[in-house]
Amino acid sequence: MKVAEIGEHKLLKIIQQYCPTDVVGDDAAILTTTPDRSLVVTTDVLIDNVHFSNITTTPFDAGWRAAAANLSDLAAMGASPLGITVGLGIPGDLEVSWVENLYQGMTACLQQYYTPIVGGDVVRSPVISLAITAFGQVYPQKVIRRDCARVGDAIVVTGVHGASRGGLELLLNPEMDNYLTNQDKQALIASHQRPQPRLDVLPHLWEILNGASQFSLAGMDSSDGLADAVQQICSQSGVGAVIERQNIPLPPAFHHWLSEEQIWEYVLYGGEDFELVLCLPPELAHELVQRLDRDAKIIGTITDGSTVILRDGQTDNPGDLDSMNQSSQEHLDRVLNLDRGFQHFSS
Amino acid sequence: MKVAEIGEHKLLKIIQQYCPTDVVGDDAAILTTTPDRSLVVTTDVLIDNVHFSNITTTPFDAGWRAAAANLSDLAAMGASPLGITVGLGIPGDLEVSWVENLYQGMTACLQQYYTPIVGGDVVRSPVISLAITAFGQVYPQKVIRRDCARVGDAIVVTGVHGASRGGLELLLNPEMDNYLTNQDKQALIASHQRPQPRLDVLPHLWEILNGASQFSLAGMDSSDGLADAVQQICSQSGVGAVIERQNIPLPPAFHHWLSEEQIWEYVLYGGEDFELVLCLPPELAHELVQRLDRDAKIIGTITDGSTVILRDGQTDNPGDLDSMNQSSQEHLDRVLNLDRGFQHFSS
Repeated sequence: MKVAEIGEHKLLKIIQQYCPTDVVGDDAAILTTTPDRSLVVTTDVLIDNVHFSNITTTPFDAGWRAAAANLSDLAAMGASPLGITVGLGIPGDLEVSWVENLYQGMTACLQQYYTPIVGGDVVRSPVISLAITAFGQVYPQKVIRRDCARVGDAIVVTGVHGASRGGLELLLNPEMDNYLTNQDKQALIASHQRPQPRLDVLPHLWEILNGASQFSLAGMDSSDGLADAVQQICSQSGVGAVIERQNIPLPPAFHHWLSEEQIWEYVLYGGEDFELVLCLPPELAHELVQRLDRDAKIIGTITDGSTVILRDGQTDNPGDLDSMNQSSQEHLDRVLNLDRGFQHFSS
Repeated sequence: MKVAEIGEHKLLKIIQQYCPTDVVGDDAAILTTTPDRSLVVTTDVLIDNVHFSNITTTPFDAGWRAAAANLSDLAAMGASPLGITVGLGIPGDLEVSWVENLYQGMTACLQQYYTPIVGGDVVRSPVISLAITAFGQVYPQKVIRRDCARVGDAIVVTGVHGASRGGLELLLNPEMDNYLTNQDKQALIASHQRPQPRLDVLPHLWEILNGASQFSLAGMDSSDGLADAVQQICSQSGVGAVIERQNIPLPPAFHHWLSEEQIWEYVLYGGEDFELVLCLPPELAHELVQRLDRDAKIIGTITDGSTVILRDGQTDNPGDLDSMNQSSQEHLDRVLNLDRGFQHFSS
């Protein structure tokens, strides 16, 4: 059954099954916010054959990924989700089941975080477009900004990088899986198709910060790649960084699957892992890493200057950040290059 | 200069000129809400050649209209605007000036209501798409809903209907302007290109309601046509209505320009006038109409049953709603038909 065959009213009825009845039905949705928190708003637009494709992405996964990306933007600000709106443009000859699967995917991701779809719009369009706006709330004194990393801060990543890019490669080139176990393959593909926004990190972070006499906190998510995240934080904070390459967590399967060059291409520039990259004082960073799962790691430190250096040293004690800065292994240093990160119009 | 030639970073720099620097720059925007108010959220998606076209709409006007439509959705709920986000999909070969003009148009409309663009996303797309989400806040006890009109309520429209449709006709068929003065033409075209959301009605409404010992209030905007608005309110409230046709305000120029049939086609089903259709007790309705400009009128009354009747009677006293209900001019009554209103997928 095609969208054009059932008409707008029936389509809206189907979509409204995925929206709570107490907020939807008027011109707009109404939500109750907590008085002492600020409102956080983020928007993403996804276009068929630009940001997703039927080759690698079912409508369910497209929905999941879109919801996850927006929740990740909230997590990156330290915000808890309140709801999302969905603006959907679809051709009349699209299958109704495609739309249903899209909403099922969004809902499956959102339900983990008790986040409703509170409204939206569905219109006719020659190309499928999906615009999601997510809103959340944050304690004003706990906003995670990009522009306030401080020299001496430890840089934490909340999980592995490169997995989503690896999963995409397996979907695009299934013949490339020679040296991977079935379990490894499924895990990488799942990382790409069903990424998890790291909203679970926030309660741990607040507990640690509440216990600290004073703190600084900066960060963002790694949706456009780990290198991009570090670069953005550094350039907006007016600082530099040293990243210890061997401390960056990555999928173990990469080592018997990819060349060294490919590994670091995926890990640093792959993007869409939706982890958090956080900068905070070393003692608090250690406490955070201990509370999170074993893939959370301190990968480097914020330095003065404006250069982001990727270091290949074999430091035995990855927590000993002072010794990193004094390393003499300059011949192994590389300066990270932001331009290799994802750019929407550059292809 | 094309979008693809300047790249994403430069395009974002241009767009950020239209966004206040204190809210934009991170993954998401942060807004402060007033503690005792609820959050209201609404989304609209507009697609090139479906919702606007280069024939009738400059990018400036497309931006203005999109902003106006979203602010009107907020006004329809009784909400004051806090900000909007803009999700834009554009082809790489689009002129950069097109994007600038779009943002100038949005900003020109928004600035009248001190409403900032607080964030958004710009992506590559084969077709121009514009997804706007607007945020506002409302006192929870003053939400204007569609589902609570009460028998005996007077139905108020805040201004003329049909003008936007008339303006569109002049843009599509300029040769149709034979019997119109230049001033009439410009006024109709302006109604289409630069509609005004009726946020100005709200302070008057609150003053009147604050003075009332008790009140009921229902309503919505007439973006999908006056007939649609009345039908929606009635069906969701489980009531009927009688509309007195001669009380509906319309552009005076229509009488020497259009046939009787065309006039009522435009007035009832034209849409996009972005007026408010409000249902409240007759004494409060009279007070509201007196406070608003002369085009605000009481056009009918809410009745029991479920039928919306358009009456052609020549009642001398349009405020005497009881006498309408007892009118014996049944041969002139017409039942309003929702299906003639705008449907996105029906064309």
